[in-house]
Order: sequence, then structure tokens, then C-alpha cells
Amino acid sequence: MALLKNVWHAAAWSQEVGDKPFARTIANEHILLYRKAGGSIVALNDTCPHRFAPLHRGKIVNGEIECGYHGLRFNDKGACVHNPHGDGTVPKSAAVKVYPVAEKDTLIWVWLGDPARADKAAIPEFPWLNETDTYDFSGGHVMHMPLAWDLILDNLLDLTHGAYLHPDTLAPTPDLRTETNLRRDGDRVYSLLSTFDAPPPPIWTATGAATGKVHVDTWLEMRWDAPATFFLDVGVMPTGHGREDGNALPTVHIITPETEETSHYFWKMFRNFSRGNPKVSEVMEEFATRAFQDEDRPMIRAVQERMAGRDFWEMDPVLLPTDAAAIQARRMIKKLLKEEADEAAGGAARS
Amino acid sequence: MALLKNVWHAAAWSQEVGDKPFARTIANEHILLYRKAGGSIVALNDTCPHRFAPLHRGKIVNGEIECGYHGLRFNDKGACVHNPHGDGTVPKSAAVKVYPVAEKDTLIWVWLGDPARADKAAIPEFPWLNETDTYDFSGGHVMHMPLAWDLILDNLLDLTHGAYLHPDTLAPTPDLRTETNLRRDGDRVYSLLSTFDAPPPPIWTATGAATGKVHVDTWLEMRWDAPATFFLDVGVMPTGHGREDGNALPTVHIITPETEETSHYFWKMFRNFSRGNPKVSEVMEEFATRAFQDEDRPMIRAVQERMAGRDFWEMDPVLLPTDAAAIQARRMIKKLLKEEADEAAGGAARS
Amino acid sequence: MALLKNVWHAAAWSQEVGDKPFARTIANEHILLYRKAGGSIVALNDTCPHRFAPLHRGKIVNGEIECGYHGLRFNDKGACVHNPHGDGTVPKSAAVKVYPVAEKDTLIWVWLGDPARADKAAIPEFPWLNETDTYDFSGGHVMHMPLAWDLILDNLLDLTHGAYLHPDTLAPTPDLRTETNLRRDGDRVYSLLSTFDAPPPPIWTATGAATGKVHVDTWLEMRWDAPATFFLDVGVMPTGHGREDGNALPTVHIITPETEETSHYFWKMFRNFSRGNPKVSEVMEEFATRAFQDEDRPMIRAVQERMAGRDFWEMDPVLLPTDAAAIQARRMIKKLLKEEADEAAGGAARS
Repeated sequence: MALLKNVWHAAAWSQEVGDKPFARTIANEHILLYRKAGGSIVALNDTCPHRFAPLHRGKIVNGEIECGYHGLRFNDKGACVHNPHGDGTVPKSAAVKVYPVAEKDTLIWVWLGDPARADKAAIPEFPWLNETDTYDFSGGHVMHMPLAWDLILDNLLDLTHGAYLHPDTLAPTPDLRTETNLRRDGDRVYSLLSTFDAPPPPIWTATGAATGKVHVDTWLEMRWDAPATFFLDVGVMPTGHGREDGNALPTVHIITPETEETSHYFWKMFRNFSRGNPKVSEVMEEFATRAFQDEDRPMIRAVQERMAGRDFWEMDPVLLPTDAAAIQARRMIKKLLKEEADEAAGGAARS
Repeated sequence: MALLKNVWHAAAWSQEVGDKPFARTIANEHILLYRKAGGSIVALNDTCPHRFAPLHRGKIVNGEIECGYHGLRFNDKGACVHNPHGDGTVPKSAAVKVYPVAEKDTLIWVWLGDPARADKAAIPEFPWLNETDTYDFSGGHVMHMPLAWDLILDNLLDLTHGAYLHPDTLAPTPDLRTETNLRRDGDRVYSLLSTFDAPPPPIWTATGAATGKVHVDTWLEMRWDAPATFFLDVGVMPTGHGREDGNALPTVHIITPETEETSHYFWKMFRNFSRGNPKVSEVMEEFATRAFQDEDRPMIRAVQERMAGRDFWEMDPVLLPTDAAAIQARRMIKKLLKEEADEAAGGAARS
Repeated sequence: MALLKNVWHAAAWSQEVGDKPFARTIANEHILLYRKAGGSIVALNDTCPHRFAPLHRGKIVNGEIECGYHGLRFNDKGACVHNPHGDGTVPKSAAVKVYPVAEKDTLIWVWLGDPARADKAAIPEFPWLNETDTYDFSGGHVMHMPLAWDLILDNLLDLTHGAYLHPDTLAPTPDLRTETNLRRDGDRVYSLLSTFDAPPPPIWTATGAATGKVHVDTWLEMRWDAPATFFLDVGVMPTGHGREDGNALPTVHIITPETEETSHYFWKMFRNFSRGNPKVSEVMEEFATRAFQDEDRPMIRAVQERMAGRDFWEMDPVLLPTDAAAIQARRMIKKLLKEEADEAAGGAARS
């Protein structure tokens, strides 16, 4: 799948970036992140314009990045401000691109496209990540995945896969009574799934949110924002009860493409029950990691290998009603990609 | 080398396929094999038409394959017969290709091309594989080889390589008195080699078929059928005696291309002497495995790397009289490939 | 970077080649080297023209190479002189290319281009390598590097990188008083760097050539010949003294491209002090190996990955005064490449 530039991409969890150089490749661009003394984030292109060394192999000196190959220094605006050799002349052309960057809800976001369009208000909100009084959190994970971002999107927007991939961890067994729905809210898509009157899935009994003896109803509401930013609200309640009697175990899933074929998979899970119990937190980490790494990843990778670089639509996929949310998202992404391609063509025509 | 579709490819030894999904890639097509309750073989395309998951990651339910990603089920005709989600609607387009398949002489064969031309009588016969009263057999081996199928063909049809690659296992030392011949029988090619009045090669003494003290004559008759199906009749007899006084150690060699650059190498060796002696069987396994894996494979791989994707004929190979059989086979393969290309072009022109 | 043919490439250290087949790939050509009984070197193309087996997998028989696949033999002129099969006929076309080869200053050099232009007098001289009375030598090293030859050239011709990559081994700390200069002598380029009045770099104190208490001046004179043949004269003396009071630790660096993306890095270091002390020799080996393998190699590799196959000039590098020597060398290489391309085009037009 092609890659979007005029969107906010999650670049890192807040705690990943400090006063040392931190590098991450996003949509084929090499990004250098670091914090200045006051804590504000700098996002620069990570390639020295002199001999193309990755700048993150150098070090931060007085809030500036010093290249580790020949010692040129660049400030937080990307300007080369120091050449240690000869008379110290600095060519005007010696500069690196600076990216709009924002820190919000414990995540750091970067904008790779036209800086004039980088509206921080457009960053999807995750207020729960700040609600430490209400929730106990797993770690902030970043899994490097050999997976195309759109295939992870298909996975997350069609929750019916749970019964087949995750019956030992997150999901109920197949052939339950379930309901799936789609909801739109502007450009935002919700994929909804409910199950009724069944033994609770393994993660719920393992975390003590339910017991195997009492049947439960579950709600799963997956919220999608372009390009691949997800919030999954999920919970269980004794069958017939309302959500106010339920326990919730929501997860943030954010997929940031590294390349067309590889992705960074950010996730954090949290719960509003069994608070303060570190054993339950361990179980939560273990089940989620197993589900995403050992159950989703190999299947999605197998799909990617089977597609062998071919376009999704050209492969003429069979469409089921349960694909509706993923199809809506794919159409919106296609539109955004077309807009970027048109702008690039227009820019090229004008120049 | 390009790959043929309108031929029978060996897909598996009979014992490899049971009531669990079994997958093998043949000529770039992903094939799923399994047995129904009565034992008959089903051969389907291994890719789910919904989201392109390999079907073999799922399971067989009542003689049907259930996809492991979202649970669609396909029957032995390739039709989707079950959608577990929503109202269970199954789109008509939800089907996978079904392949002609045959089981014969302990091997399973599939036909990838035009089903109308899949004549089971054209499968090369290996009656010896059923003659358990006459022979003791090695295991049915399948070696996955990083080798193009035509380069293995060159190897097997020019038996003079034995003196250089296999003097420690299967073959006599160089510079013996030998005779090589070529025989044609319709589209079938035989490559023949005899040696005279020499100490027996190591496998013969190690299996007790000959002793180092008595000179032997040997016969080697390699039978080829398109695309790369071989039967090697080989034996030794005391010098001057007839074959009726000899011991035979024949081998089935079948090369099924996986891709243009990799192959499945099926082999089974058997003997008509030292029957019932498990030590001799071990020696037979060990010598054959060493010869194919440790002696042939690295040399053929080195040739393949040296060719670096270039066409055999465009590299203008030096031709020796001993290449006659391989050249005959290559010409017939070229003709078959041309026929398939012409049909494909004709089909494209008509459609 | 494209590869030059009409130049002498270092193929091996003298001691690497004996009476066994020795293979090395140079500028994408597979070269077989061996010595005849009298010690003279034979350089042949390493690919058998029959079935394209690498000849070095065979053996030398009476000064001729015997192919290890089917036994053809080729003499030191590249002619096929023996076919062990059938009536022994040898097709006239059965021959391999023979290369001009020279042994000089403990190195073996080959010429891949037009043999008529292979002037042995043009081989860059390294007389020091024969001066065993004057110097103690490290081993003759050949490091296989996943690095394009021109990027190693950039590294070696801009010695200012030392203060950033090698402060723990070969070089002084940054921000010393230094002078850099460029000198031309015909097609030969010298890149010069001097430092003044500073503590000696680690290798000098570790080898006992200087002590940490006495400040030193250093000279570094890097000599370049096309394509990538270097001699680095380097030494230290107490600050204010002349070179006659100094200790020298010169290094031969020769980069022979294997492919456009990989290189053979030949090096040997030697010293004129602490003669006969094996501990000092060990330190010399250790520091040089660390500097080239653990400090230069990962940085140059990172540059190569960052360039991702793009052309150096098309990436519009920032040019600093300290790049002058590398730029001169790159321009001369560009001229040589253009001459070879023009000749190839002319030859093609004529034929």
C-alpha cells in the first residue's frame, strides 16, 4: 500500500524520546527525534547533507545534533551552525528538513507533508491515556512488524477474525450469537461487534474480570482514524446486564508505516478493574503480546507473502458484509492518496 | 527455466498426505492437499479468495477446509459452502480452483494446466515402488533444493559427473573404460553409461553387493520423462558376467519445480540384495543422502549462482557428446514451453 | 559506483596464492588464481564454459585446472586441453579468458580490461612492503566489506573523520589545531593533514611511540592512485621537532571492488620503532582492526544504506573544503569510467 504524508503519524511514545538522538523511519522518511533542555521535541531529517551519514549516530551538543562522521552540527531549525574544520565556513545549502511535531496523550506525532497543513487539532485524541486515576496500564509497546500497514488495518477493522485467531487469548469461540455493525462519524469509522450469553474469553477469566461459570455479553467498538489509528473499547458484563455493570479492557492500536511493507505497531492496553494488582497487569501484557505477536502477526504475514506485492483490489477479493468497515477505511485512504498524488502532480506541473 | 503447467507434477509421497491440511508450492502455484474420509485426495488452490490467507493454516472440518483467518469453508470442489458471520450469505465468487489429482505408485500427482488435458494414463509409471516382495526401500525423501529444476535435469542426464562428484559414494574413479549412449522411445529419453573391469564404487562394497577384491562391470540406465521425472536402473556384476548375476540399486528421482529457482527433489532408493538387513538400509540412506545433498547440491547451486539468472542457451555452453541426453530433454521441454506460451497467447487473443 | 576494468586491481596478497585453486571476484568478474611449479601466477576466468561450474571447485593437475563437475582441463592460456569422456574430443570453443597478471611488492595484481593496455609499469609502487630491515609489519589483511568502493575512498581521502570516528584508536580528539592540504602529482592525489601540540592519539601511546605526558605534532599523508589504491604515511614527533625525530606507522590501504556494493579491503600496517617486539605488533593489529572494522565499517555501511542505491552527485552533497581530495579523485574516476563507456560504445558501433 502506498504511504500518506499529509497525516499525523505516531512517531514514538513520549517516554522513548529524551536528550539522546532517537531515530525512527516513517513512511520511508528517516526521522531524528530528541528533546531540548526544556523538554520540547525536535524532529529533523536524520540524514546529514554532507556525506549522508545518519545523524542519530552522532550526539546532542547544547541542543544541537552533531554528525558522528565529520562533526557538522545542526540546530533545531535544521540549519547547519558549526563546521569544525578549516576556517569553519558553513555552506548555505547545509541544512536538514525540520518536521512539524506534537506531543499529545503520551504520544509524539510527526507530520511529513506540507507543513502549512499540519493542524495539531487534527491529531486523534486518546484522553484515556492520561487517566491514571481510572485505569491501570500495560507498557507502551512498539512492535516492529514485517507487515504492510493496510493489512493490519484489515485485521483490526474486521473483528470477526477473533474467534478464529484468538480463541485462546482475547476472543470467544466461533459460532456464537454475534452482531456486527458499522458506524460513521464524519471521516471516522467505527466497527462494532457484540456477543451474547457465552462463557467469557480467556483474557477475562485470567484477569479476574469474569469467571468461567457466569455467561457474559461483550462489547467491542473499534474506532478508526486515518491512516491507521485505532481505539478499541471492549468490555464484558454478566449476560443481560448493562455496560455500567461491566469491566473494560480497552486498547490503543496505532499503525505507523515504516515502508510499504513494514510497520511500527504501537499499542497500550488498560483496565478499570483489579486496579493495583501487578499479577493482573502481567497477565494483561502476556495475553495481548501473544495475541498480536503470535496469533495476528504470522497470519497477516502469510497473507502478505501470498499477495506477493500485488494490489489488493486487482486481486479481486471476495467481499463479505463483515468487511464493510475495512472497505470504508480503504476507500477513504484511496481518496487521500489520490489527493496527495494530484497535488504532487500539480506541484510538478507548476514548477 | 520457465515452468510447465500441462504436465503431471509429483506433489507428494502418498504417506505425506492425510486428513490434515498439507501445502506444497508447485510451479509457483500454492497447492493444498488433504484426504477425505474414504482416502481420496483433494487438491485445491491454497489461497482464500476473501483475504488471501493460506488455507492450510486452517483445519479440515467434515471433509471441508475452514480458513483459519475468518472461518469461510470450502468443499472438495472448491466451492465456498459456509460463512459463519452475519446471515451466512456466501458470495458466488467465493471459490478456489480445484486441480486434477491422481495417486499412483505411492506418489500423488497434480495437474496445474488445462483440466481437459489431464490424462492420468500419461503419468510415468514406477511399478517397482509397489514391489515390496522384491525390493527393500529407503524412505520416501523430499529434499527442498535451492536449485532450478533444469540444472538438476542436466546433472541427472549426464552421468559422467559421477566420477568427479561422487567417487566417495556412488561412482567409480575417473578415467575408467566407460561407454555412454543415448536411447529414445517416443518422448522418453534414456541416458546410458557402462563401466568395465574396475573396483566397485563405495556404495557397493558398503552395502555388501560387491567386495573390493573382485572387479565389476556396472550398468546405469537413466530414464527421463518430461518435465523432470527420472528412474535410474543401476547395478553391478562381476566383470564379464551378465546382469542376471548382478545386484541392483535403482533410484526414483523426481524433480518438481517450486519456483523458477527452487525445487522439490523426491527420491527413493531400493535394492534386490541383502534383503531384510536394516544395517544395509542405513548405509543405503546415508550414501544416497550424502551424494545428493553434500555432493550434487553445492555444485549445482554454484552453477546456478554463476549463471546469475541468465538463460542457458544465451550463455553459449560448450557441448560435448556426453551432453546428448540432456540436450534432447531440453529441446523437448522448450517445445512444450512454446506450446503453452502459444496457447496462452491464443487464449488471450480470443478473449 | 560503476566499476573500472582498464586499471590494475589488487587481487590477493602474494602469500594467499599457492598451487591450489584460489578464487576472488573482482569488479563482477570471477577470477581463478594459482601458481605453476615455477611459482609464476596464472589468472583465468573461474567459470567452466561447459556447464558453468566454478573452476576453483576442481583441482590443479600438472599445472592445469580440472573442473570438479565433469573433468574438463584448461591450461595456463585458458585452452581446454583434456576431455576425459568418449573419444576425448575437445571443441575449439572450449576455452576460458586469461587475464594479465603481475606480482609486485608482495601483492598480486590483475587487469580485467583490454590486455593490450596492461602496462605493468603502471602498477602503483609500494617499495616499503619489501623493506623488512626497516619495518615491522602487521599481517596482510583482506577484509570483505559490504561497502561500495567509492564510499571507502571518500572515507580515506577525508582524514578529518578521524577525530569523530577514531578518537579511541588512531586519531586525536576534535577541535585541535589542524591543517589540511591537497597536493596533485599528475593523476596522483595526496590528502594531507597535520595536527599540532596535542596529547598523542591512543595508538601512539599504546605502541610506546609516544607518552601521554609529552605533546606531539602529527603528519598524515594519504596518497591515492586510481581506482582506490592508497598509501598512508603517518607519524608523530614531540611538538616542535622535525620528522627526523618522529616515529612512523604507515599503512597500505587498497580497495578492490567485488561488486558495485561490496569490496575487498586489503591493508597492512608497519612501524619503524619498537622493532622486534611482538607485544607491540599485537597492539598495532588490534587498534587497526578495531578502527577499520568496528569504527569505519558501520558508519560507511550506514551511509550506503541511507543512499539506497542513489547516485552520489544526484543526491547533491554539501561540499566542504576538506572534501577537495575526494572530489578530485571522484572526478578522475568519472573521466576513466566515461572513457571505458565510450570505448565500449565505439566497439559496439564498429562490430
